[in-house]
Formats: sequence, structure tokens, C-alpha cells
Amino acid sequence: MADQLIPRREMQFQLYEVLNTQSLCEKPRFEEHNVETFNAVIDMAEKMAEELFLPHNAIADKDEPTFDGKKVTMIDEVKKAFDTYRESGFIAGHFDYEDGGMQLPVTIMNACAGYFLAANPSTTAYPFLTAAAANVVKHFANEETKQAFLPKMLTGDFTGTMALTEPHAGSGLADIRTSATLHEDGTYRVKGSKLYISAGEHELSDNIVHLVLAKIPGGPAGVKGISLFVVPKYRLDENGNPGPRNDVTLAGLIHKMGYRGTTSTALTFGENGDCHGYLVGEPHQGLRYMFMMMNEARIGVGYGAAMIGYRGYRYSLEYAKDRTQGRAAPKLAPEDEATPIINHGDVRRMLLAQKSYCEGGMALCLYGSTLIDALETEEDTAKRTEISQLLELLTPVFKAWPSEFGPKANDLAIQILGGAGYTREYPVEQCWRDNRLNPIHEGTNGIQALDLLGRKLWQSEGKGLQVLMARVSGDMKAATTPRAQALAAKLKPYLDQLGGLIQQAAGDLRSDKQAVLLTNASCFLNIFSACVVSWIWLRQANVAEQALANGASGQDGDFYEGKVAAAEYFLNWELPLVKRDIEVITSQEPTCENVKASYF
Amino acid sequence: MADQLIPRREMQFQLYEVLNTQSLCEKPRFEEHNVETFNAVIDMAEKMAEELFLPHNAIADKDEPTFDGKKVTMIDEVKKAFDTYRESGFIAGHFDYEDGGMQLPVTIMNACAGYFLAANPSTTAYPFLTAAAANVVKHFANEETKQAFLPKMLTGDFTGTMALTEPHAGSGLADIRTSATLHEDGTYRVKGSKLYISAGEHELSDNIVHLVLAKIPGGPAGVKGISLFVVPKYRLDENGNPGPRNDVTLAGLIHKMGYRGTTSTALTFGENGDCHGYLVGEPHQGLRYMFMMMNEARIGVGYGAAMIGYRGYRYSLEYAKDRTQGRAAPKLAPEDEATPIINHGDVRRMLLAQKSYCEGGMALCLYGSTLIDALETEEDTAKRTEISQLLELLTPVFKAWPSEFGPKANDLAIQILGGAGYTREYPVEQCWRDNRLNPIHEGTNGIQALDLLGRKLWQSEGKGLQVLMARVSGDMKAATTPRAQALAAKLKPYLDQLGGLIQQAAGDLRSDKQAVLLTNASCFLNIFSACVVSWIWLRQANVAEQALANGASGQDGDFYEGKVAAAEYFLNWELPLVKRDIEVITSQEPTCENVKASYF
Repeated sequence: MADQLIPRREMQFQLYEVLNTQSLCEKPRFEEHNVETFNAVIDMAEKMAEELFLPHNAIADKDEPTFDGKKVTMIDEVKKAFDTYRESGFIAGHFDYEDGGMQLPVTIMNACAGYFLAANPSTTAYPFLTAAAANVVKHFANEETKQAFLPKMLTGDFTGTMALTEPHAGSGLADIRTSATLHEDGTYRVKGSKLYISAGEHELSDNIVHLVLAKIPGGPAGVKGISLFVVPKYRLDENGNPGPRNDVTLAGLIHKMGYRGTTSTALTFGENGDCHGYLVGEPHQGLRYMFMMMNEARIGVGYGAAMIGYRGYRYSLEYAKDRTQGRAAPKLAPEDEATPIINHGDVRRMLLAQKSYCEGGMALCLYGSTLIDALETEEDTAKRTEISQLLELLTPVFKAWPSEFGPKANDLAIQILGGAGYTREYPVEQCWRDNRLNPIHEGTNGIQALDLLGRKLWQSEGKGLQVLMARVSGDMKAATTPRAQALAAKLKPYLDQLGGLIQQAAGDLRSDKQAVLLTNASCFLNIFSACVVSWIWLRQANVAEQALANGASGQDGDFYEGKVAAAEYFLNWELPLVKRDIEVITSQEPTCENVKASYF
Repeated sequence: MADQLIPRREMQFQLYEVLNTQSLCEKPRFEEHNVETFNAVIDMAEKMAEELFLPHNAIADKDEPTFDGKKVTMIDEVKKAFDTYRESGFIAGHFDYEDGGMQLPVTIMNACAGYFLAANPSTTAYPFLTAAAANVVKHFANEETKQAFLPKMLTGDFTGTMALTEPHAGSGLADIRTSATLHEDGTYRVKGSKLYISAGEHELSDNIVHLVLAKIPGGPAGVKGISLFVVPKYRLDENGNPGPRNDVTLAGLIHKMGYRGTTSTALTFGENGDCHGYLVGEPHQGLRYMFMMMNEARIGVGYGAAMIGYRGYRYSLEYAKDRTQGRAAPKLAPEDEATPIINHGDVRRMLLAQKSYCEGGMALCLYGSTLIDALETEEDTAKRTEISQLLELLTPVFKAWPSEFGPKANDLAIQILGGAGYTREYPVEQCWRDNRLNPIHEGTNGIQALDLLGRKLWQSEGKGLQVLMARVSGDMKAATTPRAQALAAKLKPYLDQLGGLIQQAAGDLRSDKQAVLLTNASCFLNIFSACVVSWIWLRQANVAEQALANGASGQDGDFYEGKVAAAEYFLNWELPLVKRDIEVITSQEPTCENVKASYF
């Protein structure tokens, strides 16, 4: 069966019909680009993903990396794919020309990323983590460190990691114990243990650059005393080449349910007291630096979840068109031929749900990507501030919503395949296992809910919300056909209720109702996310309805009809689920707050 | 960490406080039993499950059965557990004394089953499938076949399978192609391929008795032409012992995502034209025989899903009490100690949700078990008819609801463990993988929805529904404390709406609205199930509230408080989700019905 990644028609729709990405070429930063160069890069990504990443996705899952006590071994295909990726310059795709990059918009780079993430999220993690670490080094490291590491990270000669979690401290980074002590040579000596560090050990690159959160003794307690260090696997010699080992050792590999191709490591720093680290920026600012990169990282997680969801959706769609089972009205007699299962209504429901989750998540995160591009290119300060406020507000949704609904899509893909879907002979079960990481890492979805309700809604005196509501309102007004107007009308009362609940929350958070409200924060995130994604679907439906009104027909007409149907599904089937959440928040439902540990 | 199966306190509550199982001892069939003998059997099951089944659950997952082209090999622990199980007489636990059984109630046998299913669903499948197949042989096989096979199945010398699915026919059994041709010796020659046959090959027993659906040439088309055959792996010699191989060959093992310890097989019957089969009962009645056993099988699937859910719930509960992370009000300073994560409200939400799903599913399926016991012991014909009608009506709920919510519970257990939950070093990810089979087999949940809406609601002119509503109404009246009354009041409007929707459906199914209604059948099942499970929770809350009113305190008081809290969680957080489903059904929402295959 064809195992197609994201159809180009879909990508084109998102980039050029909904998001108007081509307008970025008018900005000085991107003036050397045009739609043709954008598409050429996406062509290259699609081809590379299909030819070098997809074929070993299941192999790397079955034959995962191993550690013999000395060296990590993995299947050769990973290095071949990684090398081709890095040689194509993709790691530096978004970076400036002067850094050796292609200075491409984040939106276009994420369009490319979609193909790699759908094809093989595990192998993709190596270059993606490197690009993310390089971004931190570029923005916050001092000149010497930057010169030493950034160029080789951007070529992929060195790879990168983010080493935050420790065995006893994951979500609660305040409690990390890794220490970094100033040495007389001006560098630091790092000592501690880190856990679940993705890509923390392998032989894909000449060196691994760990970005390590650690505490400088004597600093403030809690998160205010966390600093950031560059800690390479090999220290550099006088020529900048990897020299002696730097006392970072692999304690062991973690065996995950999915994402098995990416090594997950337990690392020990400074077992022999000789682990050199280089302070990034100022002492005690480490968490702030990490979090300034977090918006992009969180969009990446949500987007990846949508893309893994997408691959499962496409596979189950092909299966549903091909697999025959039972009869469909009016040909119900035993003598009639068995019908493709897509002709059973409940199968179509499961397909539409997947479509609404995956294309919704994709559209959402590409929208987030355009905000990052806009931040980099907008010259008007007031507008830039607005964009920044909107980006901050929506980041918990970019991360949490697709990472909840991407796995749900994969679950439905398994169900459509039935017994076949439950076997490792078909790809959808691996999609689910791979995707299940996404609601956990980069801040669990529970933490995203607290981030939204406890912090993001109130930043800049709630300006982000005003910007959001103005944009939503604009798109509701842009709904001019009856079907688009019906969607806008459906959304309206939910938006009104959301507004009321936010007002109520503003007061409750300063009262004795704070505890119950925060306990129920997931409901708040559900309501907010459902409204945002409904708006994202309204935007797509507006474009599709316009195209249909302009006479789109044939395959194109079907494409747009599918968009409107998915929007209708989302607004009529998914959005009303948050009536429960509205009820819980409105009534300040106290069960979860009041239940005692001893009651369980 | 302690890896406790179902607490005995919980089992005692269900059996003796809610279901009044002890009253069965007043019936002639069970008059030799009493609560002490019931509990002794459960003690034995619990001990065996913990000592012989639980320890190799993860091992059998990692080191799954293999086939070298001649023989299936699996870890020794499976045979040891299976032998101890069969030697204890559990396979025949529910069977009559005259069959060599213990003549125990289904409810008590399912209480026992809970421990095995929670500990190790894969190894448990071998004896459970054998008991199910033996039940069919007992009821429908002719005397000769019964004498030949039943006694050895009940001792576990022979094991059993249910061979329904074929490569091209799973849900749509009408299309099976396996044929059975009458031979001059009065037996049949079977020819065909079967797929996904659990326990279809192994070396645990002296023989394997396949119950095979096949078509006798010249019979009616479709499901009306399906007959049932006993097809042994080895034919029996004149002494009734396994003799020559019977031309049933293992084409290969299927590699599943979970449930890996149970062999899933592709079987070829009659490759050499010499596969002997023995007709069960009358020709063309095979599906009817299978389905007369289906009520029990479907309760078993739902119950197993609840039990696998339960193990994950208990594990995540212990983890949440043990694992510290972050701070909880009022001790929020970095200097304060990190708090057990159960003190975070969102973690309690995820625990309460699991509790409500797993104890709800357990209570639901044990309730179903009491209906089977009542059917066997009730002497009043009118009452027996009512019980039968109720059992038929509720069977889709027994199967579908726990098999949807058990995996959801496991998903939440993974989320509570966070990064740890995503690794194979902790048991919760295996629970999820194992449980994911349950929404698929024994009739997918989509088929359960069609069974409810298209058939079960209208059987016996809707008498089943009247019986159900009378029982629900009785339990609502029995709610006498304020908290119990609040739960009943919460349920009332949903029941009223359900009644209205059923009336509407009765008409719609005979109109041109039939198609859209059946396409949206899953919503109907959601509403119906949520009402039923809310009632099941109300019953538990009634008992708990009564105990609290009678002064229960200490650990016992906490236990009952937990019951009421879980009931409140379910009614306030889960039941309102079906407002969406009510909206879809009421509005006859047409999106899934109308979307065309070409729109995707």
C-alpha cells in the first residue's frame, strides 16, 4: 500500500492559500527567496524524507540502538540519512547567511520538517536537536564559545542536546543538583547526573555539545540559581578539533516504548572531577535562556505530533479505500460484493476526526511558525509587540493540543485497521507509540494548562488575548458563504463563554478559589484550545468556501469540500465536548481538589 | 515499588456489599458454597496470579513466542503457570459437578479472573479461551464429540481456540471462504485459511481443539450458511488420545503490539486435503452457536480491559504517592521540600479518572456476571425472561465501554509517570499496549454501537430497556443521603433525554434518516453507556454513603469516601461529555454521512 507522507496539495494550501507565506519574500530578510525557491527546498525535503528517512523508520524501531559498555551502535541507515540531511545544509536552514545558513523562514523550514517528522521522527531528532541547541548557542553564548561550537553544529559535524532533566527532577527543575564550580582557568567543572537526554550518546557526529542546566554553588535557591553551560563530549584542541574526552559518560540507554531510534540516555558528568563546562551568558540566567528558545521547541513538539498523526491518518485512509468488509446500503445482499470500509459511516467518522486533528494541528503550528517569522521581520514596534504577545499566549496550545490529538488520531488509525492495526506488520501502531512521547516532553500537557491559566493569559495585562480575539473576530467577519457563516455562528457562543470564564478566573486566582481553579486547569486549556483550533479551521474553511464559490471543481473541488467537511466535523463534533469543561470551570467543581490521597 | 493487583477490600465491596453475591448460596445450584468457599477460591486465584502469572508478564512481552518453521517456542514460565492453573481446576470452575467442575458462580469465577487478567493477560488467554471453547462444545456438540473432547478441555490437557476470522473476513463473517465437505465417513474435510487465531499453536497442551467457522458447499449464502466444526490439531486414536496430525498447519505467527505472550496465528486447514472436522450441532447454525456464547465472551473482554486498566491505575497511584516533584501550596518556597505529585490537583484528576474508569468497568462487568448467574438460577420464568432481555441489551456496553476506557486509564497512568511511564523499565506502557486489543476483538466497538442501536434496543419490543429503567429508577430512589441524591439528580435529565432519543430513533430507523443515525451510532452508544455507568456508580455511592452514615471511619471511612468521590467525578466530569453526543443525535448531524471518499 502507498505510504504517502503529507500531500503537496495540502502543504500548498496551508502555505500559500491560508498563510500567505509568499508575502514573506517582500521582507528584506527573505528578499532573495521566492515561491520557487521555497518549493525547491520542500521538494528536496520530501524526496530525502521518502528515500532516506521513511524506509528505516520501522527498522530502527525493531533494531534499536544498543550500548556495549563502551560504544553505542545503531543501524547504518541512520548515519546515512543524517549525513545527507546535514550535507544538504538543512540544519542551518533558518540561520542567517552570515552564519552559513540559508536564511529561510521558520514556516518553510517547518514545512520541510513535516516530511521528516512524518517519515521518521527518531532519526529526525538528531539534526533537529542540533539546530535547537545551535540556536541557543548563537543567541546567548559568548563569542569564544560561539566561534568554537556554532559553525560545526550548523554543519552537523557536532550535534547538540538539551540536558535539563535529572533522575529526581523533571517537571520541577528548581531541584536540579548538577553543580558547576568556577575553575581558576575561567571555565567550570560540572558534576551531576542527567536522565532522558535524547541523542546524548551516539557515533553520528565528531562531537556532542550538551547544553547543561547546573547550579553554581552559592547562587540563589530554586530556579533563580540555574545556569546554562556548554559541555562537549570531547574538549577541543588548539585547532578547534575534538581532543580528549571530557568526563561525560554514558551510564546507560533508556528503553522507550517508541521513538526507539533516538537514543535516550542517562549521562554522568564529572565522575572523575574533570568535566569542563563553559558558562553560557550570565550566571543564574540559564532557565531564562532555555525558555527563550522554548516557544519554537514547543511548536516543534506539537507539530511533530500532528505529523506523526498525519502519517497514520493517510495510511488508514488508503486502507479504508482498499479493504473490503461487509455491505453498504443499498447493496446489502450476501450476493453483493463486499464494500470498501470507507463506505461504512463510522469509518468515515474516524477518518474525519483524524483529518480534523492532524490538519488542524498542522495548520495551527504553521500559523505559530508564521508568528515567529513575523517577529523577525515586522518593522513596526507596536505590531511586533502584539505578535510577541500572541505567540506567548498561544504557545501552550501549540504544544498541548496537537500532542493530545495527534496520538488520538493514531489511535483511530489503529481502530480502522482493526486486527491488522494491532500488529507490527502495519505501521500505525508504531506511529502511536512514537507519538505518545509528545504529551510528556517539553513540559507535560498538565504544565501547559498551568502555564496558560496561571501565567500566559495575564502577561502584558492580557494584551495577547485582545490580539487573539481581534484576529478571530476578523476571520469570523470574513466568513461570507452560508456554510462558513454557520461555522462562525457555531463558534460565537463558545468565544463569549470563554471571555466570561477568563474574567471570572482573573478574580478567582486572587481568591480562595485559586486552588480549585488551578486543579481544574486542564479544563480551561481544553476550552481555550478548542476555540483556537475551531478558529484555525474556520480560517481554512473560509479559503475553501471562497475557492468553491469561485468555481473550483474536479479534484480541486473535492479537496476544498474535504476542508469544509473537516471544519464542520470539528465545530459540530469536537467543539461541543468542551461544554463539560465549561460546566466544570463555571461550577468550580471541587471533586479533584477535595479528594484526599488516603481515599484512593 | 509494590505492584499490587486488585485490592481485596475493593473485591469484597463489589461482591458482597454491592452485588450481594452471597445470596447465590441460597440457590440450589450453589447450595454447597458459602462466602468462605468463595473467598478461598479467590485467595487461591490471587496468590497464583501474583506468584506465577505476574512475574513473567513483562518477560513474555520482551521474549515473545517464536516459530522456527516446525515448532513454537515460548518461555518456560508460561507452561508452569498454565499447568498450575489447570491443575487447580480453574478451567472447569464454572462447570457442573457432573462435568468435573466446581459449579461456582460466574461472578466468583470473574472475581478470580480479575487477578489473572491484571497480572498477565497473555498467559491468561490460554486457559480462558479453553474454557470458552469448552462451553460451546458442552452446549452444542453431539454426544460423541463432547465425550471425546470436553473432559480433556476442562482439565486443560487439550486447549481450545475460536477460529472465526479469515484474511479477507473479520468483522464481515458473511464472506468466510473456509469450506467443510461431508466425507463418506460422516465427518467433514475442512479447507481454508484463518487469521489472528489466538493460541492457535503452542506446546502447552497435548492437543488444540479449534472451533472453526466454515461453509458447507451448497448451503445458503452469507451468515445463514455458516456452520461450526471441531477441528483438532491431532486426531484422536481409538483410546481417545492424540494420534496423527490433522492437516492443520501454522502458516506463521503474527507479531502484535501487545498481548505478545499469546500466540496469534495464521492457520492453514486442509492444505493436503486431509483436515478432519466434526460438525457441531446442525448445519448452518454455526454463527448462532458462537453468538450464544458471545455474551459471556464480551463481558470477558470488557472486564479484562478494566483489569489491565486497574493494574496501571494502582501502579500510577503508588508512584504518585512516592514520587516528589515541585511544591504544593502553602509550602511553595525553594527551601521547602518537594511534594509527592499526588498533591498536585491535575495528578489527582488523572487518578480519579482512572479510578472511575477501572472500578466502574469492573463493577459493570461483575454486574453483568450476576445476570448470567441469575439466568442460571432464577426459577420464575417471567423474571428469567427479564434478566435475559437486560443481559442482551447491556452486552454492547459491557464490551465496548470498559474496552474504550480501560486503555484511557492506562494512557493516564503513563502520563502520571511522565518520562518514566514512557519507558519499558516501568510496567504501564505494556498495560496500554496489551489493552489496545480490547476495543478491536470480539466485535469492534463500532460494531457494538450498531448492535445496540440497530438490534438490541428493539429486541422483545424494547422490554430490556424497560427492565433497565426500572432498575435504575429503583437505585435512584434508594439514594437517601444528600450526596447520593445529588448524584441521582445529576443523572435524571440525561436519562430523560436518552428516553426521548430512543423514541426518536425508533421512528428514524424506519425512515430516510436511518443512514445518518447509523453513521452516528457511536454517539448513541456513548450516551447509553454513560448513563449505564453513571447508574453503576450511583449504586456504589449508595452503598458507600450508607456505610458512612452508619459511622464507617478510619481506613474503611476513607475507602467509602473514595467511592463517593469517584462517583462524583464520573457524574460531574464524564457524564456531561455526552452533551456533545446528544447534540449530534438530536440534530441528526450529517457531516460523517455526507462526506465522500474523494473529499479526503
